Amino acid sequence: MRLSGTSIIGFRRGEQNGNAFYAFNPGTAASLHPAYHPANRSEVDRAVLLASEAFEQFRHTTPQLRAAFLRTIAESIERLGESLVERATSETGLPAARIHTETARTCNQLRLFADLVEEGSWVDARIDRADPFRQPLRRPDVRSMLIPLGPVVVFGASNFPLAFSVAGGDTASALAAGNPVIVKAHHAHPGTAELVGLAISEAVKSCDVPEGVFGLLYGPGELVGMQLIRHPLIKAGGFTGSRSGGQTLMRAAADRPDPIPFYAEMSSVNPVFVFPNALQQRGHEIASGLHSSVTLGAGQFCTNPGLVFIPEGTISNDFIHELKNKMQQTSPFVMLTSGISSAYRRGVNALADHSDVEALSRDEHEPASECEARAALYKVAAETFLANADLSAEVFGPSTLLVTYSNSNQLVELARRLEGQLTATIHATPNDHVEELLHVLEQKAGRIVFDGFPTGVEVCASVVHGGPYPATSDGRSTSVGTRAILRFVRPVCYQDAPQSALPDELKDENPLQIWRMVDGKLTKERIK
Amino acid sequence: MRLSGTSIIGFRRGEQNGNAFYAFNPGTAASLHPAYHPANRSEVDRAVLLASEAFEQFRHTTPQLRAAFLRTIAESIERLGESLVERATSETGLPAARIHTETARTCNQLRLFADLVEEGSWVDARIDRADPFRQPLRRPDVRSMLIPLGPVVVFGASNFPLAFSVAGGDTASALAAGNPVIVKAHHAHPGTAELVGLAISEAVKSCDVPEGVFGLLYGPGELVGMQLIRHPLIKAGGFTGSRSGGQTLMRAAADRPDPIPFYAEMSSVNPVFVFPNALQQRGHEIASGLHSSVTLGAGQFCTNPGLVFIPEGTISNDFIHELKNKMQQTSPFVMLTSGISSAYRRGVNALADHSDVEALSRDEHEPASECEARAALYKVAAETFLANADLSAEVFGPSTLLVTYSNSNQLVELARRLEGQLTATIHATPNDHVEELLHVLEQKAGRIVFDGFPTGVEVCASVVHGGPYPATSDGRSTSVGTRAILRFVRPVCYQDAPQSALPDELKDENPLQIWRMVDGKLTKERIK
Repeated sequence: MRLSGTSIIGFRRGEQNGNAFYAFNPGTAASLHPAYHPANRSEVDRAVLLASEAFEQFRHTTPQLRAAFLRTIAESIERLGESLVERATSETGLPAARIHTETARTCNQLRLFADLVEEGSWVDARIDRADPFRQPLRRPDVRSMLIPLGPVVVFGASNFPLAFSVAGGDTASALAAGNPVIVKAHHAHPGTAELVGLAISEAVKSCDVPEGVFGLLYGPGELVGMQLIRHPLIKAGGFTGSRSGGQTLMRAAADRPDPIPFYAEMSSVNPVFVFPNALQQRGHEIASGLHSSVTLGAGQFCTNPGLVFIPEGTISNDFIHELKNKMQQTSPFVMLTSGISSAYRRGVNALADHSDVEALSRDEHEPASECEARAALYKVAAETFLANADLSAEVFGPSTLLVTYSNSNQLVELARRLEGQLTATIHATPNDHVEELLHVLEQKAGRIVFDGFPTGVEVCASVVHGGPYPATSDGRSTSVGTRAILRFVRPVCYQDAPQSALPDELKDENPLQIWRMVDGKLTKERIK
Repeated sequence: MRLSGTSIIGFRRGEQNGNAFYAFNPGTAASLHPAYHPANRSEVDRAVLLASEAFEQFRHTTPQLRAAFLRTIAESIERLGESLVERATSETGLPAARIHTETARTCNQLRLFADLVEEGSWVDARIDRADPFRQPLRRPDVRSMLIPLGPVVVFGASNFPLAFSVAGGDTASALAAGNPVIVKAHHAHPGTAELVGLAISEAVKSCDVPEGVFGLLYGPGELVGMQLIRHPLIKAGGFTGSRSGGQTLMRAAADRPDPIPFYAEMSSVNPVFVFPNALQQRGHEIASGLHSSVTLGAGQFCTNPGLVFIPEGTISNDFIHELKNKMQQTSPFVMLTSGISSAYRRGVNALADHSDVEALSRDEHEPASECEARAALYKVAAETFLANADLSAEVFGPSTLLVTYSNSNQLVELARRLEGQLTATIHATPNDHVEELLHVLEQKAGRIVFDGFPTGVEVCASVVHGGPYPATSDGRSTSVGTRAILRFVRPVCYQDAPQSALPDELKDENPLQIWRMVDGKLTKERIK
């Protein structure tokens, strides 16, 4: 498929405006053709206007059509085949195997939402029937369900060129609920974005959904991104990326004349709490698993375990020794962008500069290329950690900080002092008293992992990929799993509506055969 | 019960600090004893600290205990009997019958949440079981449910001294979910607030829930209110009141170092759309119902119908004539506060000053007392209405504006131009084509009423009392009905947790016998 380097605005392509940029191969430092042209203000307006015009028709499509649309997108992406793998690996430096699994995950995710929409009960349909004889006042017939918000802007992540990008989780959940989507393409993988964007456009055409249901816009966040989040016809936003980027957009969403829901997934150090008995029984296994988790994908995951709490003293010696050796023996990585690798170097250098932080594994060589990075391991005592808030800042990359604690009370105190997190992990045995720690972590994290590692997020109905601020802008939500469909909807209620005016989900006969709460009871029965 | 005029901070009372204020009888203009003393900064801190300390224990209470606590609050309020009626009528000018029905509604609401918590399925428990054989990676066991956020601050409304105040909807839903609550008492009914606050305190003691679960603080919004919404230990807020008050608090909640969920229900003009056939068939009935709805409770309802779209021309003559007569014959009202009545006078005067607005019913007499107000009726042509945005501003009180439209296209255009609303109402017959209008209104309002009137909000599972900004700060939510429990919770997920670490809601055996989504299917079965 030939790349044109321009935005996708309905069935047309954007102009070749000025200030073009090129993708960059972080492995070879080569620029990649074609040139990518930022959308200008009128193109952004046109895309949003098309989306707004498409909304009314799209939100009234049948669940079957929306499910077919999502599945067709998955098939279109799969048809990209090697051209997608080639472009994505060039732009990101990620290995082909990773692109294959991430593509599979992305397409499975689209199909999961297709199944969800087809099943239909997610709309939380509720019906309370009238009672004409109630005293002192007749009880009206009241029915409600969740409906979509309107055009959604999605800001894709650099580190997941597929699963959290153009056809990623936010796009899938927003489309599933019936919202048009405009994606602001990430500058780190514009070609991958275009390929996937074209695949979605093909599905728009072949499924006969309205033209404006999908748009893809190139350009700088400060211009195109800000124009989108401030646009009066945009009704919600989703973002995955840095804390500063997320906070800027949060502020813009809250400062609108009409504030809109905005979901930013921003940063997390994903603390791991290792109890003494677990360390004694499975120290080797934990060291090995932790090493894999910290270095997976060059550590470029929002679930990367960046803090590990271990008991102080000789009990941890073997574990530290083994982890240190593994980290030292880890081959260098190519990171996604020069911005990410230089931020990583700043982060590990800042840790090294702390007088009370011990560098257990740190490569002092000049990197062989701009995007090269090496695994790093540091150690610090709990008292120092507690006294230096900067030590709990995220270092995005293959680095982790071991924090040695003296007793279980201190471990709980360390947990209490943490910011909001996407995940927290406990390694314990049945003999360890985890309850107090667990209760603190329930208040700190969206997902609590037992005896495993936080990288790898299962895409399913029950998963929560979210967490209290500043892990996300809004801890009431998840960006992964079917619960994510609740991001882009709101309830609407019909009082004494004639059957003909009601959506199918709320009609007496229950034509979609969904679960509904009728007079307080869950049922799939029709109302007689 | 003797009123002391001080805040309720756990099991202690606040100090008699300076700057005391008195309640005011809007009917007699008499000040009411005792003096009410604002909480000082350290008292606010102490109340919040107690709430924060109570949280961990309170959120782990059994659903049965929380249900019993809610029911005990209802009983305590009912035991207040005539002392509550007497104080509430004196402070508000509302008739005793209204206080009786509002007390019943408040207590029913507490019991509705008790039933909801006892039934237990609201936690949205989800379980996806492990698959050790999945390739390429084992599938973990993932389980999730909704848990409470932490201490919630509730700002009560002036116009519902019971149902949207100290033990109102936000308090009931927050407590039901397991959150401690601190209420900032409304200055318009401090004695009612104290009586209800003491009733809750009694229930706290007799049910043996932790002391800090409830607090009641007096003082100005600019000081006590702002200190509460900005307090680091406060995790969410709920508000019912004016647009300016709500917006100030929204801003404060968003500007915190850690922004928190904040739900403000602010303003709404609750448009009523009357189709020609309905006017012809039921003009008399609509005029009569509209008059009752506009003047109910002196028009001091957020669901008061402030805009009525009727066909232009002779078809509306009888309707207008009848409504005008009814409004002119309506006895004067006593409004809740002098602030509300003077704002009402400014609002109706502003309408009268519009050169193209016709005053159909307007009393020009000087009011007999500061809080007196009279029903008002105005009429304007659609073109004028569309050209003057200020004509769609809320006038809080017994006033409504008739807007004459020329055809159904214009009616839809009028709907499109409206701000977000709590409600919208359609009067039509089976021969009217309501679909296009309905689809616009679904995007504008939280509740759509057919052939009725928006005042009177049924408290049930399916009701939505919310709507797009600026009707509320967050259209994804409702402040009435059982769905309101979703305001003060967030999902948390457990991966590969041992049974002993899981909350009862997620244990294999399903000891609470709640509905859960297990492997994608809703079931009450235990897991074998």
